[in-house]
Amino acid sequence: MRYFTHDPESAVEHALAGLLGFTGVSLQRVGTHLAVVYPENGNRKVKVVVGGGSGHEPLFLGIAGPGLADGAVAGQVFAAPSPDAIYAVIEAVHADEGVVLVYGNYSGDVLNFGVAADDAKANGLQVAEVRVHDDIASAEISRLEDRRGIAGDIFVIKAISAAADLGMSFRDVVRVGEKTNFQTRSLGVASRAATAIDTGQPMFELPEGEIEIGMGLHGEMGVRRSAYQPAEVLVPQMMEMLVADFEQTKLPLARAAVMINGLGSTTVLELLAISGHVRKFLDLHSVPVAYQAAGQFATSLDMAGFSITISGLDDELEPLLAAPCQSFCFTRP
Amino acid sequence: MRYFTHDPESAVEHALAGLLGFTGVSLQRVGTHLAVVYPENGNRKVKVVVGGGSGHEPLFLGIAGPGLADGAVAGQVFAAPSPDAIYAVIEAVHADEGVVLVYGNYSGDVLNFGVAADDAKANGLQVAEVRVHDDIASAEISRLEDRRGIAGDIFVIKAISAAADLGMSFRDVVRVGEKTNFQTRSLGVASRAATAIDTGQPMFELPEGEIEIGMGLHGEMGVRRSAYQPAEVLVPQMMEMLVADFEQTKLPLARAAVMINGLGSTTVLELLAISGHVRKFLDLHSVPVAYQAAGQFATSLDMAGFSITISGLDDELEPLLAAPCQSFCFTRP
Repeated sequence: MRYFTHDPESAVEHALAGLLGFTGVSLQRVGTHLAVVYPENGNRKVKVVVGGGSGHEPLFLGIAGPGLADGAVAGQVFAAPSPDAIYAVIEAVHADEGVVLVYGNYSGDVLNFGVAADDAKANGLQVAEVRVHDDIASAEISRLEDRRGIAGDIFVIKAISAAADLGMSFRDVVRVGEKTNFQTRSLGVASRAATAIDTGQPMFELPEGEIEIGMGLHGEMGVRRSAYQPAEVLVPQMMEMLVADFEQTKLPLARAAVMINGLGSTTVLELLAISGHVRKFLDLHSVPVAYQAAGQFATSLDMAGFSITISGLDDELEPLLAAPCQSFCFTRP
Repeated sequence: MRYFTHDPESAVEHALAGLLGFTGVSLQRVGTHLAVVYPENGNRKVKVVVGGGSGHEPLFLGIAGPGLADGAVAGQVFAAPSPDAIYAVIEAVHADEGVVLVYGNYSGDVLNFGVAADDAKANGLQVAEVRVHDDIASAEISRLEDRRGIAGDIFVIKAISAAADLGMSFRDVVRVGEKTNFQTRSLGVASRAATAIDTGQPMFELPEGEIEIGMGLHGEMGVRRSAYQPAEVLVPQMMEMLVADFEQTKLPLARAAVMINGLGSTTVLELLAISGHVRKFLDLHSVPVAYQAAGQFATSLDMAGFSITISGLDDELEPLLAAPCQSFCFTRP
């Protein structure tokens, strides 16, 4: 047992206190909810609210800030935020033209964000939902909208927020969000399960020396379990799966944004090495990389593993992903 | 065994390739060395070169960039860079007035940076060395200069680089570096040893359920081993030790910069919660916090643990730490 807290609920509460002390972005808590707003994105007529379970830090509360979300709301560890908390954030962001909710496509989130959205609409607010579905391992391409959301959340939130900063209409902001969502694909791999904070036990079964491609952020079953393979073998396999997925939707991967995301215990040394292998693959396949990041963005407590996220860029999306932003999670000067 | 590479040397080489692909900062490799330069810090007459072993990513290669180091050089995992590599970086940065070398105070680094510095001086270059000694657990205050350097490296590199950006003289840049070094104190704690990349074995012995305060970045022995304590108990103890250390040098901790550094496997959820506890302690002791960061800055492979770094600020240091900078390791817009 190596956690410095054994009580998930107080960990989440203290983490929110820590986030509010982070200098650089001045966040405000929303009531007593696990929720924050950043009220200073001045040019926006349309506001962006994001959310999901805790345990994925720096997501979700850590991505409110300039050029990113106006509001963010969390649930307890691996649990969706409550409809009340979501509604409170929608109310707190004060949008002139409407609010776009961005969250990963999980049944609990779909249910609770849906309830909050309905309540807001009943009170005369314009609300749309973008359910991020970037995890190619979680469903066949024919059921794209059943796929789960993983680190692709970051690119979708980034693009949609930059669109809002340009003063785009509600309809265009939603369109940009859905387009980025469609053009963003991720694939993860785990070499060790996450550990439950309270019990210290592995949260699912993955035998020592085995890896699982496609394992989800909460230990959802993947698509391929195998013996250990080194990154130089594993990464090209994963990249082939990602590229094949783009090809199945006839989407030209002409230019890419790339994010290597550590799931918890994977070292920065490894994440950089994995980045090198990803870049080598894309160079060999003549795909220019407009943007490349590596780090911890959407974790799964202390799971050992990483995910690769690729966004196919066009002339509209590239400047949106390149626009400056600042948050605890993700900063681009 | 959960690493995605079992060969430390190729991991380090691939990680350098990954770093060179990171967009945002355009780094150049120095020959075939594990070394990079960022040649665009235009206003500087004095250049800053940093370095140390690999396994601490995003340090050391990841901290070259605007507002930060002009050159960075790494050794293999937990090994000092070679004198040849260090010398090559000193030569590559092209300083008009001189080069300041900043590195953690470890015998291998002291030896190798010293050899390179002597060679550079013999060739007519002005060179100074700042050996970071922030780890209060590694020696008594009476032997301050024997202490090891841990995450305090970041604040010293940041301040000295900002001083160079202001066009300060060689002498003043060195003075700022030594002052920041003197005013920066850190303390770490581990709950699980790092794992060797090649063997998968723990790199030192720390029984399950025990924690060790003061354990070094390479598993150096700490000052206090105990049974597990939760962060809300542990953090105030560590803060008392840090504050007592400042008091022993009659240094008023009137205003602080704070960094919570994850050592490898400690979750971002925990780092944020720890930040909250640190801030609560400083608020109770009426110490204003001018700057607070949390994340992975100076790791020890996948060690579970964290360190707290406090810099005592004055009117000269505060704006230097607040100045904009950008790198893979550390960005402040």
